[in-house]
Amino acid sequence: MMNFDFENLYLVKPCSFDDECYARAMHAQKIVDNAKIFSSFTDVVKNLDYLVATSSIESQSDKRHLRNAILLDDFADKIYDVEGKIGLVFGREDYGLFNEEIAQCDIMVKIPTSESYSSLNLSHAVCLILYALYVKGKSKIKGKRHLGKIEKDKLYEFFSTLLEEINYPEHKKQNTKIMFRRIMGRAMPSKWEYHTLMGVLSKTLEKTKEKRK
Amino acid sequence: MMNFDFENLYLVKPCSFDDECYARAMHAQKIVDNAKIFSSFTDVVKNLDYLVATSSIESQSDKRHLRNAILLDDFADKIYDVEGKIGLVFGREDYGLFNEEIAQCDIMVKIPTSESYSSLNLSHAVCLILYALYVKGKSKIKGKRHLGKIEKDKLYEFFSTLLEEINYPEHKKQNTKIMFRRIMGRAMPSKWEYHTLMGVLSKTLEKTKEKRK
Repeated sequence: MMNFDFENLYLVKPCSFDDECYARAMHAQKIVDNAKIFSSFTDVVKNLDYLVATSSIESQSDKRHLRNAILLDDFADKIYDVEGKIGLVFGREDYGLFNEEIAQCDIMVKIPTSESYSSLNLSHAVCLILYALYVKGKSKIKGKRHLGKIEKDKLYEFFSTLLEEINYPEHKKQNTKIMFRRIMGRAMPSKWEYHTLMGVLSKTLEKTKEKRK
Repeated sequence: MMNFDFENLYLVKPCSFDDECYARAMHAQKIVDNAKIFSSFTDVVKNLDYLVATSSIESQSDKRHLRNAILLDDFADKIYDVEGKIGLVFGREDYGLFNEEIAQCDIMVKIPTSESYSSLNLSHAVCLILYALYVKGKSKIKGKRHLGKIEKDKLYEFFSTLLEEINYPEHKKQNTKIMFRRIMGRAMPSKWEYHTLMGVLSKTLEKTKEKRK
């Protein structure tokens, strides 16, 4: 983290910081000392506007919407347009992220790796992602895209209501909602785009609801 | 190495391969088993056509020609033009490469790192360089996401019809359609995602049209 100018480490239910931990941190011990500890992933999520799940495992099938990923380089290119608090979410050394954690994220990033041995260790995955962001960040310091968690949540809520209104098949709802989140996550709409989309959705909802009166 | 399809590990006067070494190699133990051992750096050099020294420390002064480096991304871009056996030379975990070793190399590559903490550990340095080479190597035969123009046009048509149905303000229509196209363009939906979105839109249109009957 310190090699690439990242400071804020959030940990969910970490192990204790023993001597080995400090020895390995080398000259970056202050990052360990300043780490914020959370007791659940849901608690961390509340503090952040945009969540990025990371994985070296990508879905081969289109239908595995959950793990439909953007490649690291493309991600590093786009993410600087987003304003707000962005969280890079890394999973456990052995199991990575659980599906219910990935479902809460806005975008999934894949680090390209060999098909014959795709699984990176956690430390290398973190290193590669922070490096890619560091390098891209240095090459561009420009106008950022404004993004509010409130607008985002509202848009997802509208979409969810729309699915209710149109009697969308119950068993498809969850996947379709996650798909919508993924599409928006990849598109990284601007504030104006969010508002415009919300405008369209709210008018659509009015129309579908009128009918029931 | 195996994560990025590299196979040939040359080691100069290594320590012995103990249990910890194999445990850490995880599923890449064959790379350890197939490693070639040399008793001096000069012996390795004889086997290779082009040597690349690596460092996160770059010379501040032009006169320190020895460490006058090319950045990793530029290197990865150019190295594929070189024919012959290329050796990536990594130094010791603590001291890196000695000047007399660097002097025997053809080029020096620098991994961009924070000025406040530039020194990477060896494993991370190797990982970053192999990753950069792997990604550049693949970009020549990059598989693109299959996207049907028919699906895309149909989706835009649905969206346009929706705007009609909800009596969307005439003067805003054009911009909103373009915005939708831009959002989708950035999100690059998969075929499955297009079909799912079209499903939602077509059900929405049914609902809004029912009303008029």
